[in-house]
Amino acid sequence: MRATTIHGPFDIRLSEVPDPRIVEPTDVVVRVTASCVCGSDLWNYRGENKVRPGRIGHELVGIVEEAGADVRTVKPGDFVVVPFMISDGVCPHCQAGMQSVCVNGNFVSGEGLDGGQGEYARIPYADGTVVATPDVPDDALVPSLLTLSDVMGTGWHAAVSARVKPGDTVVVVGDGAVGLCGVLAASRLGAARVVAMSRHEPRQKIAREFGATDIVAERGADAERAIAELTGGVGADAVLECVGTGQAMTTAFAVARPGATVGFVGVPHGVEVPIGQMFGRNVGLAGGVAPSRAYLPALMKDVLDGRINPGLVFDYELPLSEVAEGYKAMHERRAIKTLLRP
Amino acid sequence: MRATTIHGPFDIRLSEVPDPRIVEPTDVVVRVTASCVCGSDLWNYRGENKVRPGRIGHELVGIVEEAGADVRTVKPGDFVVVPFMISDGVCPHCQAGMQSVCVNGNFVSGEGLDGGQGEYARIPYADGTVVATPDVPDDALVPSLLTLSDVMGTGWHAAVSARVKPGDTVVVVGDGAVGLCGVLAASRLGAARVVAMSRHEPRQKIAREFGATDIVAERGADAERAIAELTGGVGADAVLECVGTGQAMTTAFAVARPGATVGFVGVPHGVEVPIGQMFGRNVGLAGGVAPSRAYLPALMKDVLDGRINPGLVFDYELPLSEVAEGYKAMHERRAIKTLLRP
Repeated sequence: MRATTIHGPFDIRLSEVPDPRIVEPTDVVVRVTASCVCGSDLWNYRGENKVRPGRIGHELVGIVEEAGADVRTVKPGDFVVVPFMISDGVCPHCQAGMQSVCVNGNFVSGEGLDGGQGEYARIPYADGTVVATPDVPDDALVPSLLTLSDVMGTGWHAAVSARVKPGDTVVVVGDGAVGLCGVLAASRLGAARVVAMSRHEPRQKIAREFGATDIVAERGADAERAIAELTGGVGADAVLECVGTGQAMTTAFAVARPGATVGFVGVPHGVEVPIGQMFGRNVGLAGGVAPSRAYLPALMKDVLDGRINPGLVFDYELPLSEVAEGYKAMHERRAIKTLLRP
Repeated sequence: MRATTIHGPFDIRLSEVPDPRIVEPTDVVVRVTASCVCGSDLWNYRGENKVRPGRIGHELVGIVEEAGADVRTVKPGDFVVVPFMISDGVCPHCQAGMQSVCVNGNFVSGEGLDGGQGEYARIPYADGTVVATPDVPDDALVPSLLTLSDVMGTGWHAAVSARVKPGDTVVVVGDGAVGLCGVLAASRLGAARVVAMSRHEPRQKIAREFGATDIVAERGADAERAIAELTGGVGADAVLECVGTGQAMTTAFAVARPGATVGFVGVPHGVEVPIGQMFGRNVGLAGGVAPSRAYLPALMKDVLDGRINPGLVFDYELPLSEVAEGYKAMHERRAIKTLLRP
């Protein structure tokens, strides 16, 4: 079969690799019907993370091709969403809804695993990891279901971690796919006002479709002033930090009102937490690697019922054979997020 | 009248100062019937903070001697608890229960104010700051009511910030008066298990009276191991960091389970927040300067109804004239907390 492999910075290929097969009785093999490129894949692509040559990608949906003897919750023929991390479903952290810290957890593209951007993938701990739709869904719903693998689950985690509640004024820092999903999450959780920080017109447009009531195109001190003005000098009830840079974190804390929480899901790169400011202004910080699996059932129902349409974040669709162009387009910011079909 | 003044490191005196009088119509003048020395006063005492010579102390209870023309909620003769910060009660932060970030806020010992360790004190914004008991309370209740000025409100804030809920396993880092009050708060909020970290027998005893179910006397890696063992390797549902040092924060994060929140109320000194660990393990951080005023009505009812007895943290009582010895005893750890009577 064919799967995406990385060989060094900016070197993405579609390669011939062995077909996966059931190894443990709790495995499934999934025939991938859609996958995509993540903002975090770009850290490897750009060589900003040390590249381990091999399989890549961690977001996928597809049809169960084969199930191990001990798999109970899905069967061959089922359409499943695969979260970006596997989880056993039974450890204390999984039981508490923190599947991203599962004691047997791993990234779908982690050591010994197949990654998501191929034709098939073996997924361990199927019962604790994948979630099936009741029926094979209409093709039009596939992009939205695919976002539940990572970006929508991650945006949702930002909003949950920031403790967004009905009536809140929420600021979302970051207009990547995760930030946009954060806007959608805040809106779905009942925020009265959602301020999207974005200076890119196509992203602003999606943010508005996702429920943003205000757009702030400024950055740094100008953005802080704009948000202070929007909130009558009080600040936001909740802030979603969906970037992971020091500047994004600085802005997030600056626009949070006392008592607010900054929900952070951007992988921290060069972030220094302003502990004195947190203490003096009582602004909390919570978040991390999203337990997408925890949110999957409810978000899947929202997608199937037509209440949310996070698939709008995909603005570029390619056949898997053109995966290298999919990475390039995101790297060059020609695309927000690339969807790949086999 | 006489009031405590600081003149330099280890130089505490009882000095003759002008009698306070009403300046603004929203002021009250309180005759102090009990005050005390705070752990944070010791930062000044030891010269670890830059000492501003003058009045000191910020915890007091007493009788309203005189009230300005606009004061509505208390009257001369009322017994009042004065939180360690004044707050106007009407700004957006006060209205949201974040009185410690009031736009007109100040510490009771702040610039232009009288401090708490004297015979009288002028307290601005009386309606937004002080809370009266229904009747002048029995003298036996005064120590517990006095803790609501700061340490009990601060311990409560640690527990609230850490989101302690019924059934939780809670670890409290720090066995000072605030840490002990944190134990009491966690217990009152329904924690099933409260682990107090303390290696001092008298403090362990108070912790047990406050509801601690387990004591961990170890520190550092040994303490982490002990708590891992106590929690079956899972970690605590909530952690209260009541010290403010780097080591205390390191321990707090190490013993928190994924998804937990570290509630921090120790003034941070040399603390570096482990952002990578927070992200990877989904442990949040929240807290800061406690809005004691927000918690005062409910905690006052708890004290008057006999449900909590935080006054046990006072293990040394002196006349105000011996205030210097009160500081010295706490500095030398001969006393947990010194109560001063006029």
